[in-house]
This record gives sequence, C-alpha cells and structure tokens, in this order.
Amino acid sequence: MDECEDVPNDFIKLKSEKLSVDEVSELVISPYCGAVSLFIGDIRAGVATLGLNRTAALEYGDFGSSSTTPLDTACSRWEKWPSVKHIAVQHRLGVVPITEASVIIAVSSPHRAESLEAVMYCINTLKASVPIWKKEIYEDEYSWKENKECFWANSEK
Amino acid sequence: MDECEDVPNDFIKLKSEKLSVDEVSELVISPYCGAVSLFIGDIRAGVATLGLNRTAALEYGDFGSSSTTPLDTACSRWEKWPSVKHIAVQHRLGVVPITEASVIIAVSSPHRAESLEAVMYCINTLKASVPIWKKEIYEDEYSWKENKECFWANSEK
Repeated sequence: MDECEDVPNDFIKLKSEKLSVDEVSELVISPYCGAVSLFIGDIRAGVATLGLNRTAALEYGDFGSSSTTPLDTACSRWEKWPSVKHIAVQHRLGVVPITEASVIIAVSSPHRAESLEAVMYCINTLKASVPIWKKEIYEDEYSWKENKECFWANSEK
Repeated sequence: MDECEDVPNDFIKLKSEKLSVDEVSELVISPYCGAVSLFIGDIRAGVATLGLNRTAALEYGDFGSSSTTPLDTACSRWEKWPSVKHIAVQHRLGVVPITEASVIIAVSSPHRAESLEAVMYCINTLKASVPIWKKEIYEDEYSWKENKECFWANSEK
C-alpha cells in the first residue's frame, strides 16, 4: 500500500449497543501510524448530588437530533496536528450501566505526541461543545442533568 | 462495593501472544473511575534506514531478563496524579507484524485529566528508561536496533 493511498478518515457514530474498545481502535489503525491514543468515558458510581442513592446508570438522550453533526464538528480536523491519520468517535445513547463506556475516542498518528495531544483536545472540545443530556438513574428515582461543561447550553439559562 | 475496597492495582505483563486492547482496558475499569486513557504502540511500515525494503515486522527481545522489573519501575505510582486508580501495561515479545501492538498502556482515574496526563507520562518514561532491543525484519534481511530514546542504554556506547 502506498502511503498516499491510506487517506485520513473520520469514523463518527452514535450507537445504542455496548461500545467496543477493540472495534474503535481497529478503525484508526494504519500501516503508517506507530501510535493510537484512546480516551474512554465510563459511567462511574458518583454520589448522587441530590443526596439520593449512588448512580446506578445513566441514560443519554440524543443531541437535539439523531444526527452526528455535533460530534463531527467537535472532532473536525485539527490544524495543530496535521499528521493525525484517522479519528474515530463513538457515543452511546440510551441507558448505560456503571463501568460501561458512554464515549470512546481513538486517534492515530505516525508518532505518539500528535495522537496523545489530539485525543486530549478532542474529549475536552467534545465536552465543551456537545449538549449531551443525561438522566441519572438511582435505585428508585431519576433526574435529568445537562452536560455542565457545554458552554452554549449553559449560556441559554 | 465500598470505594476503599477498590484498591489501586498495577497489572504489568510481558506476552508472546497478540495483545488485546479490550483485555488491557478491562483491567483498569473501576466503578469509581469515569475515565480510562490508553496508548497503543503499533508497528508501522517505516522506510528502512538502510535503504532496504520497508519493515515487514519487528522482533522484540527481552529486557535483559524475562522479568517485568524495568516496566514496573517505569510505571511506578506517580505522586503528581494521586487519584489514578489502576495501571495496566502489556509489552509483547517476539515477532510483531505491521499494524499489531507492541505495547499497550491503560490508566483509570475518577476524572479525565489525571489519566490522560498519566498515560502520556507513562509512555514517555517507558521509552526513556526501558532498554527494548528490536530486530527490524525486512523482506529478505534484518537488523538489530536499540531503543533510541533509552537514555542509559545510549550512554553506554
């Protein structure tokens, strides 16, 4: 395979099924990349802010539509890391139990610095720009929560 | 499970078989961690420095012994990120074909900044301190190469 044949690709997907780290990392593999960096956002058993039981699961709504547009925008090509090859982002919708992934990001690059920095930038951008609504599900109650880091969702209050 | 029951653990392993990203990431999952960051070092088809054919595979020797001691040292607990929960590092020995992983590092933490920064620090430390010898295998020849970033291996020249 000639290097120019391995054209950079973005693989952005919303899924209702359990996410697979193997699947997302496989998407970005390239014979010309020695580095793949990943970030996995898992559901953790945080102490409920309302003084209720610990979170049992989270339910994610869509992003105002069922398209991947907000994710595409958050993960658009970065001028700072031109050598980044492939980018894969999968976000789960629906109920996600504790310890399972709500989001997985994978980035490949020839050398490690680019993919490590880009994956950190990508999750920060995604958190700041994608209006993810989630329902905190306790043992016997639930509560809808907004993504606290999303600047434009918060500015509408 | 009480949070204090989920004691921080290190899972360091040398393997001759193909590494699994799913397996390594599963090792560090904790109900109290919302973040898992991973780095995967893949074999890439670099142009051979000797003007021979492109690399077809790499063969890794052991680290002077078959113990994991050099990896344990490189990945010892970091004071800078006390909230890091679990650390998993797997390094493959033997012949590793192009696009397969030679090393996988996974780090979990309650929030994302710690695991992202720690995984970056971990691969940099590992590259700088573990004397990994590798044999570059071309289509019809091979050449033994030292890890160029390992400061103490290079200082012995």
